[in-house]
Amino acid sequence: MIRLYDYLPSGNGYKVRLLLTQLGIAFERVELNIINGETRTPEFLAKYPNGRIPAVELDDGRLLFESNAIIMYFAEGTPFLSADRFQRAETLQWLFFEQYSHEPYIASVRFLVMYPQVRDDRRQILDMMRRRGYDALAVMERHLKSREWFVAERYSVADIALYAYTNVAGEGGFDLSSYPAIRAWLDRVQSQPRHIPITQG
Amino acid sequence: MIRLYDYLPSGNGYKVRLLLTQLGIAFERVELNIINGETRTPEFLAKYPNGRIPAVELDDGRLLFESNAIIMYFAEGTPFLSADRFQRAETLQWLFFEQYSHEPYIASVRFLVMYPQVRDDRRQILDMMRRRGYDALAVMERHLKSREWFVAERYSVADIALYAYTNVAGEGGFDLSSYPAIRAWLDRVQSQPRHIPITQG
Repeated sequence: MIRLYDYLPSGNGYKVRLLLTQLGIAFERVELNIINGETRTPEFLAKYPNGRIPAVELDDGRLLFESNAIIMYFAEGTPFLSADRFQRAETLQWLFFEQYSHEPYIASVRFLVMYPQVRDDRRQILDMMRRRGYDALAVMERHLKSREWFVAERYSVADIALYAYTNVAGEGGFDLSSYPAIRAWLDRVQSQPRHIPITQG
Repeated sequence: MIRLYDYLPSGNGYKVRLLLTQLGIAFERVELNIINGETRTPEFLAKYPNGRIPAVELDDGRLLFESNAIIMYFAEGTPFLSADRFQRAETLQWLFFEQYSHEPYIASVRFLVMYPQVRDDRRQILDMMRRRGYDALAVMERHLKSREWFVAERYSVADIALYAYTNVAGEGGFDLSSYPAIRAWLDRVQSQPRHIPITQG
């Protein structure tokens, strides 16, 4: 069975859990507490040099890390990823936007708020991180004003990737009241068949 | 002809320039000075809401942003990207590693060093950024100790993406003398047919 190294509060882990559940693919979840350094043990680093979850081990022992690479792998050949070359590139565009312009601000601010005991130099630039988080939300709001979904007018891994941390942005203090298109899209994502919340393993 | 919105010192722009040149695909380069806000004009934002280069406009007017999404698009069906499903996922794994764990530290430190006149809150956490840059280099060094290339033992977009800023890491003060496998790999990348340096438009 596919093994998913995961941490329940992680939106990056949640992307993989949500997609596998919606695809009906069985998986075994191995919970690792990132706060206690459980992804930085010699055993974990020998398999996953980046020392981060989520990471997967396939049935044949092959290993893969990086949440968005993992969901692209499992979405291949399913309705969650277009077969069209340009639409695949647009999907990747939003996945890289998520990891570069969204997650480092929206997810990281949430992390710093959730774990006040963790020493982290980024607390010094929290205001800038909040501003950049709202910048990312503004890009999403603008895109969703005239569209139901991020790519090709259907629910896909692009929506899953951006949903993961947008839906818990409030836990980092982000206020979505001025982002009606995002809020309507969050509702649409939650209405998809086999949807699970981030709290479900 | 393909239009590439670009900024010559940008490693992200360089990835696209280098791949298109090696593929023999003609393109028109439009230089935008990111320091002067030339990617934040209403005209540019109307086409590319994220306000960043590189961004491309295809012959038929279709638009794409995010450097790694762009190089994945052009590499499709060429020797620069494997056709194997798992190797494609491994390629994406390294591309997401580059944008999440490498570029925000190695490229951003270089940026802050190159442009001391630019006000940027991240100057407060420069030490942390340097540490994380070296963390990324350590992951690369370990991977390259037993391999010639990042994925499938051949030169690919994974190498292009990681080469772009690793090769100019010294401009940010990073010292590669303790990373012999990385230095040998940089030499191999530079020896590929039709290689161009970052300074070439």
